[in-house]
Amino acid sequence: MASVQIRAAKEADCGDILRLIRELAEYEKLPDQVKISEEALRADGFGENPFYHCLMAEILPAHGEPQGPFLVGYGLYYFTYSTWKGRNVYLEDIYVKPEYRGQGIGTKIIKKVAEVALDKGCSQFRLAVLDWNQRAMDLYKALGAQDLTEAEGWRSFRFEGEAMRELAGR
Amino acid sequence: MASVQIRAAKEADCGDILRLIRELAEYEKLPDQVKISEEALRADGFGENPFYHCLMAEILPAHGEPQGPFLVGYGLYYFTYSTWKGRNVYLEDIYVKPEYRGQGIGTKIIKKVAEVALDKGCSQFRLAVLDWNQRAMDLYKALGAQDLTEAEGWRSFRFEGEAMRELAGR
Repeated sequence: MASVQIRAAKEADCGDILRLIRELAEYEKLPDQVKISEEALRADGFGENPFYHCLMAEILPAHGEPQGPFLVGYGLYYFTYSTWKGRNVYLEDIYVKPEYRGQGIGTKIIKKVAEVALDKGCSQFRLAVLDWNQRAMDLYKALGAQDLTEAEGWRSFRFEGEAMRELAGR
Repeated sequence: MASVQIRAAKEADCGDILRLIRELAEYEKLPDQVKISEEALRADGFGENPFYHCLMAEILPAHGEPQGPFLVGYGLYYFTYSTWKGRNVYLEDIYVKPEYRGQGIGTKIIKKVAEVALDKGCSQFRLAVLDWNQRAMDLYKALGAQDLTEAEGWRSFRFEGEAMRELAGR
């Protein structure tokens, strides 16, 4: 039987990562939001001080099969910081191609992120989810996550574009 | 007249940073939540791949005054990543001592973060706020921020402690 492998992305994966980022945005019906380039992904993820890290989910071929491995999902994370508890991991994107869902691949990605988090001395592993995405919220809760917006009333704010330039006086 | 200076923290500031972190937690009535040490702040903010960056807000002495500068607040931020738009800045903590509020010091810290964000090629500047903190939400909105929990339905989730270890199979 074919098996699933979760491995760290290499710089040469950036083209594939961008394709999956676009697939996720299409799934969210927001394909026009993706402004990032393969070059930016290479520079930002594989330089001296990487802004992100990425995990690739692949199906390995069964014994004797000529093809593979082939990519079925990804998880993109970075390190953040709590002034109460120190190092954290934040999972920005998690995506599994629709035809490969329901096989535990998302859970495998999440478990790998938890391993990385513990290896790096992180005390928390956070992520955000849109409130209509009940399936994802159910999964995270089933895996032990707490909904901080519900439990503590945290709200997310953003400055962008003109508002940010105005703040900086530019 | 005394003036306010916002400057980048140095490693020697970590003791002061920890005192301000504790003040903020006391203000939030959660002083027991602060588990971090000065040593962790030194290691995590001033190594080769810093997990955070910190701004110090100081009142500079007026001409002829013998004392100062003295510390009145801080802002602690780190870089995050959007797979749609690339590099972001996230302001984890912003704090001004109660007796120095209403003088625009918080706004000065936010403006400095926006400058750093633009200098580093970031397209977004995010932060989170507790839903009872109307004063902070009003300030961020007045400065041009959008409430993403309200506008887009983003909810914040967290894995911690036992849940994280279980995920990692440890």
